[in-house]
Amino acid sequence: MLPALLALVLPLWSLNAHADEGMWLPEQVPGMGAPLQQQGLTLDAARLADPMGDPLGAVVSLGNCTASFISADGLLGTNGHCVSAYLEFASDPQHPYARDGFVAADRTKELWAGPSARIWVTEKIEDVTSKITAKFKAKMKDVDRQAAIDTASKALVSACEKAANRRCQVVPFYDGREYELITRLEIKDVRVAYVPAESVYAFGGDVDNWMWPRQCGDFALLRAYVAPDGNPAAHADTNVPYHPPRHLNVQPAGVKPGDFVMIAGYPAATFRYRTALEAQQAVTVRYPEGITFLNALITTARGFARTDPDAATRLQQSISNMMNARKSYEGMLDNFLASRIVDRKVALEHDLDAWIAADPKRTATYAAPIAELRTVLTTDLSTFRRDRLFNGLSYTSKLLGVALTSYRWASEHEKPDSARDSGFQERDLGDIRDRFSAIDRSLHLASDRALLKVILDMTQQLPADQRIPPLDAWVQKAGGVDKALDALYASTSLGTAEARQKLLQSSKKDLEASSDPWVQLAVSLETWQRGVRATDKAENGALARLRPVYMDALREFHAGQLYPDANGTLRLSFGQVAGYSPQDGVIYTPQTVLAGLVRKAGDAPFDAPASLLQKARAASTSPYADAALHDVPVNFLTTLDNTGGNSGSPTLNAKGELVGFVFDRNWDAVAADWIYDKDSTRSIHADVRYLLWLLTEVDGGQALVKEMTGA
Amino acid sequence: MLPALLALVLPLWSLNAHADEGMWLPEQVPGMGAPLQQQGLTLDAARLADPMGDPLGAVVSLGNCTASFISADGLLGTNGHCVSAYLEFASDPQHPYARDGFVAADRTKELWAGPSARIWVTEKIEDVTSKITAKFKAKMKDVDRQAAIDTASKALVSACEKAANRRCQVVPFYDGREYELITRLEIKDVRVAYVPAESVYAFGGDVDNWMWPRQCGDFALLRAYVAPDGNPAAHADTNVPYHPPRHLNVQPAGVKPGDFVMIAGYPAATFRYRTALEAQQAVTVRYPEGITFLNALITTARGFARTDPDAATRLQQSISNMMNARKSYEGMLDNFLASRIVDRKVALEHDLDAWIAADPKRTATYAAPIAELRTVLTTDLSTFRRDRLFNGLSYTSKLLGVALTSYRWASEHEKPDSARDSGFQERDLGDIRDRFSAIDRSLHLASDRALLKVILDMTQQLPADQRIPPLDAWVQKAGGVDKALDALYASTSLGTAEARQKLLQSSKKDLEASSDPWVQLAVSLETWQRGVRATDKAENGALARLRPVYMDALREFHAGQLYPDANGTLRLSFGQVAGYSPQDGVIYTPQTVLAGLVRKAGDAPFDAPASLLQKARAASTSPYADAALHDVPVNFLTTLDNTGGNSGSPTLNAKGELVGFVFDRNWDAVAADWIYDKDSTRSIHADVRYLLWLLTEVDGGQALVKEMTGA
Repeated sequence: MLPALLALVLPLWSLNAHADEGMWLPEQVPGMGAPLQQQGLTLDAARLADPMGDPLGAVVSLGNCTASFISADGLLGTNGHCVSAYLEFASDPQHPYARDGFVAADRTKELWAGPSARIWVTEKIEDVTSKITAKFKAKMKDVDRQAAIDTASKALVSACEKAANRRCQVVPFYDGREYELITRLEIKDVRVAYVPAESVYAFGGDVDNWMWPRQCGDFALLRAYVAPDGNPAAHADTNVPYHPPRHLNVQPAGVKPGDFVMIAGYPAATFRYRTALEAQQAVTVRYPEGITFLNALITTARGFARTDPDAATRLQQSISNMMNARKSYEGMLDNFLASRIVDRKVALEHDLDAWIAADPKRTATYAAPIAELRTVLTTDLSTFRRDRLFNGLSYTSKLLGVALTSYRWASEHEKPDSARDSGFQERDLGDIRDRFSAIDRSLHLASDRALLKVILDMTQQLPADQRIPPLDAWVQKAGGVDKALDALYASTSLGTAEARQKLLQSSKKDLEASSDPWVQLAVSLETWQRGVRATDKAENGALARLRPVYMDALREFHAGQLYPDANGTLRLSFGQVAGYSPQDGVIYTPQTVLAGLVRKAGDAPFDAPASLLQKARAASTSPYADAALHDVPVNFLTTLDNTGGNSGSPTLNAKGELVGFVFDRNWDAVAADWIYDKDSTRSIHADVRYLLWLLTEVDGGQALVKEMTGA
Repeated sequence: MLPALLALVLPLWSLNAHADEGMWLPEQVPGMGAPLQQQGLTLDAARLADPMGDPLGAVVSLGNCTASFISADGLLGTNGHCVSAYLEFASDPQHPYARDGFVAADRTKELWAGPSARIWVTEKIEDVTSKITAKFKAKMKDVDRQAAIDTASKALVSACEKAANRRCQVVPFYDGREYELITRLEIKDVRVAYVPAESVYAFGGDVDNWMWPRQCGDFALLRAYVAPDGNPAAHADTNVPYHPPRHLNVQPAGVKPGDFVMIAGYPAATFRYRTALEAQQAVTVRYPEGITFLNALITTARGFARTDPDAATRLQQSISNMMNARKSYEGMLDNFLASRIVDRKVALEHDLDAWIAADPKRTATYAAPIAELRTVLTTDLSTFRRDRLFNGLSYTSKLLGVALTSYRWASEHEKPDSARDSGFQERDLGDIRDRFSAIDRSLHLASDRALLKVILDMTQQLPADQRIPPLDAWVQKAGGVDKALDALYASTSLGTAEARQKLLQSSKKDLEASSDPWVQLAVSLETWQRGVRATDKAENGALARLRPVYMDALREFHAGQLYPDANGTLRLSFGQVAGYSPQDGVIYTPQTVLAGLVRKAGDAPFDAPASLLQKARAASTSPYADAALHDVPVNFLTTLDNTGGNSGSPTLNAKGELVGFVFDRNWDAVAADWIYDKDSTRSIHADVRYLLWLLTEVDGGQALVKEMTGA
């Protein structure tokens, strides 16, 4: 599966862009009309420039994933693996939807996805570079530069969000050379209409994750709900299905090898223009240490999940995320070595340096900033271990996370709204409350403590110049990690949802005077972290000054139109249905079928439901069977460029009709975030015909099929 | 790699034989001329009936493997993995040929392969069924029937071996329905001319063993030496290269996909006509318990090999054999389940039973013997665990093996030669001496004891009705396994090669009076084992009576020409160069190339030599590069039917020219010993062009290339 955006992932470039490479901005597509039509696109390329038009208007963000409207009544299609948090929220021991799947008997039975679930529809993408850089001065301090960016961004967002139910954000493109203001409609009542059993949508589990051949029914159908007046509203029984201005047409004819296809979605992050140094840092430190770190957490969490069904339900999403990230890092390392990514980047940068040195004007423009950029990146790595563990404190212990967030909220709350840190303005309060509320479903006290202990034990091994002093003091005072944890978890002050919400309403002063051990620990940690954050802001200001110069050098060194690195904004990728050769003696064909699923079925994680296996025997006569394959197609490979965040993105044919959903990338292309390789980078899609077959033959979702296809 | 023949493997049939299935007797081939010519054979099929003709006359047995003469001066080609025992014998710490490979600078430098190495050239295959069954009576006891077979066989062998330097054997075909007397010329001075480094011939090690894609240079070149008068003789410096009447022509043009190919060789054992019960026994008991058993031995042996370089050298062959057998059993289990072999055999036998029951005459002929066959097979399984451990005593402890063999030799020696058990006649003494002598190179005392302890510990867990009483008494008297072993290994009576050879000359009476703990233990074990052997003889007599009836029923039930199960005699298989689809979404192409090896190269077991990797870069311009692949081909897949014993068999093109050497079968066909499946059973071959390239570019063997190709 594609990884959700993870804070610790980083950086590559591949400037010899060709047909299948690139996550293009809608506005860039009209300029690519001729080559796209040559590749097979039949609809007018100009239509793809309009984020509100057909088909892009139907493509929405779920935060970590992409979805698309596929009916006039607000039905959305996405991946099953994108909605497991929703299912966790909706499940209880009698209804383990996250395991068994769910199909709503009718619309009134659709499952509320919880208070955190959101649908964002991109309405406008506006270049605001000049507004962001208006206050820049030639000789300003880096920390002031970052403050200028933050202030201008917040002012733009604030003005934009004056419109009701709109969420806005300012996003840097081309490593900060440009800024865009994105306006999105926010829908707050999301419900689950259908998801197959976990053994269907995640068939093969972690074993097959990132792998081809694949047989995953990685589908989910959601529905957007709004108030009776048509405006977004918080979840309420009185809400009605949303009628989107645009929805995709489902094409049950599917795809065949060689077909032109495209995906539209919200890829989170790529690193194609990062420096050779960052590639080296990734392969020598960030990825290998990330694996060690995740191993420790996964082992602990799975220990609980194995022996305690309640823990298993509560930790499922978190374990699955960590395992996915670990497999991604392992694949990155494999790929970095197999594709010699560092060598290639070093060689490229060597050429870039030589090209700069060969000309006095270029030297004057680029040499010093690029050298400084390398220094900043080296400095950044020096605190990598400490920073990851600090972030891990709230990542592993949801309770400590609540205490830290509450105190930071209280501290920021004393400032005028526009002066507060991003994420702690009034506009963010609802999200924070929803996150606190959702914790009820995932909190498991014993594992919360055990995972925090893993982090704490690691902090005790940090080198002397990278300690976290307030944490050291706290551990030392208690007489060791275990005693410190005993005292902390002896306090039940954060034990109830009410208590956690109340904490968020406390003043800074009250919290600082609190005798509760959670709050005391949070206050001391957050007070220290404030200083770290100030350093980070200066560093970010420096990067905002230096990275665009590096990007300029790259643009000048190479010529031609570039797509910006993925950054969570709406993008389009183009390619075709195609297999590849992963190694000497092996060819991967681009389609899998039900017979292949049946042959692979067996013990978990290959434990497909008996009903599916039974029905699969007659698949050759299904109306969804492929004429050439004599079977229902399950998954397919394409040359399309994707990354985490694209999960659930609709796969469209040359006419813009829905033929599948992208849900993964292949193992040989895990490192494609750094470099796209036309011979081996492939997207993995779930065929819409498999969805229609599952709904019709296995899961009793005929009404949904009718809604999607009219038949 | 193909497994050497293992005593514990067993049984399937697949009577709808088609073009690529079957290990055919030379005498059967003329009858298949038309279909073979349709498949592509260009030479006259009648030529393939003559074991002394061209090309079969060039194909010889090495015991566990096949080889073939490829020059007029007695040069032979086979697999590297077939000669590792020879290399172990020839190696010393300063010359680890088994690891580093070897190429003789000239003929005088060729390495003697040791006293056990033999080359057997099949001269005659003669039907002796009537001579074997002449003394059979309708109502004779099974033990007498077996004795009649043994007596008649030994008389035939004895008469046959009156001719100098001939080894003869009587072999049952079609499960004992027919018997053939095989006459073979025995060449006793075998030398190694070339073998690549282990990292080349076993590239990928146990990880890639049985796997495709594959990049193994699994080659070895041997030379047969004889006395100056041209007759076989023991190793001597005065010996001269043998001039074989036939040798194969090497075809450096190699093969391409779709080409007709054949192999000639000595496949050891298949089970294609065994009962459903035997398939069930294999999958429920023999294979799974075989894995457990081997796991224990391998873990112990590798523990020594890891920490002690001397142990590593001495144990290499034995560890490699055990790991290969374990992987084979694992594959068998996988295959049995994936291919539902038991279900298919049960269904087939159900039909057979119904067909028998439907006719009174058939019922009278077949019903009772088949029922009795099942009973005998069930009884046989009941002592499986005990028998395996007893055999394991001499398999694991070479010293105990020496003592047991010596006492049995002394006991048999008191009888007239023709009354002795097979393997203990005068004709066998030379082999026994050579085996004793070869122990010098592989004996490692600490592991000898540790491995024996593994077996002894297991014997202590046997159920009450399956104990080995003399072993129990010995262990109990000593006060436990460890103390018993202390006492045993405290005696150094078998510590020298002289002492071991001397033991073989002792009389039964002297041995029975000996106070040496090795001899005392051997006498008590062998005395008990004599009773077990009597039971086995009766059981074998019963099987010799019953299996042919079952075979008759099968022959009558199905129609058409059948090939007999493999039994170590000369056979021919026919097929073509072809890949296959191992699973949904994947195609295996039939050829690999040096670029694939380079890409896979890395840490052990993929640690190809730097010199090879360096030279591989220029492979596309080599005269041995394939025009279509633009690279030197390394391995290829064919539909040919093979099994253990076929390792090293020459792969011949339609004209009978040498194009490769078979060295393995694919993982999806590990269970092909039970059933051949045209969609997935494949042989894996090393391309002769890779051998020529290695000799020319990497290993300095130009003289050998000239000898093989004349160029």
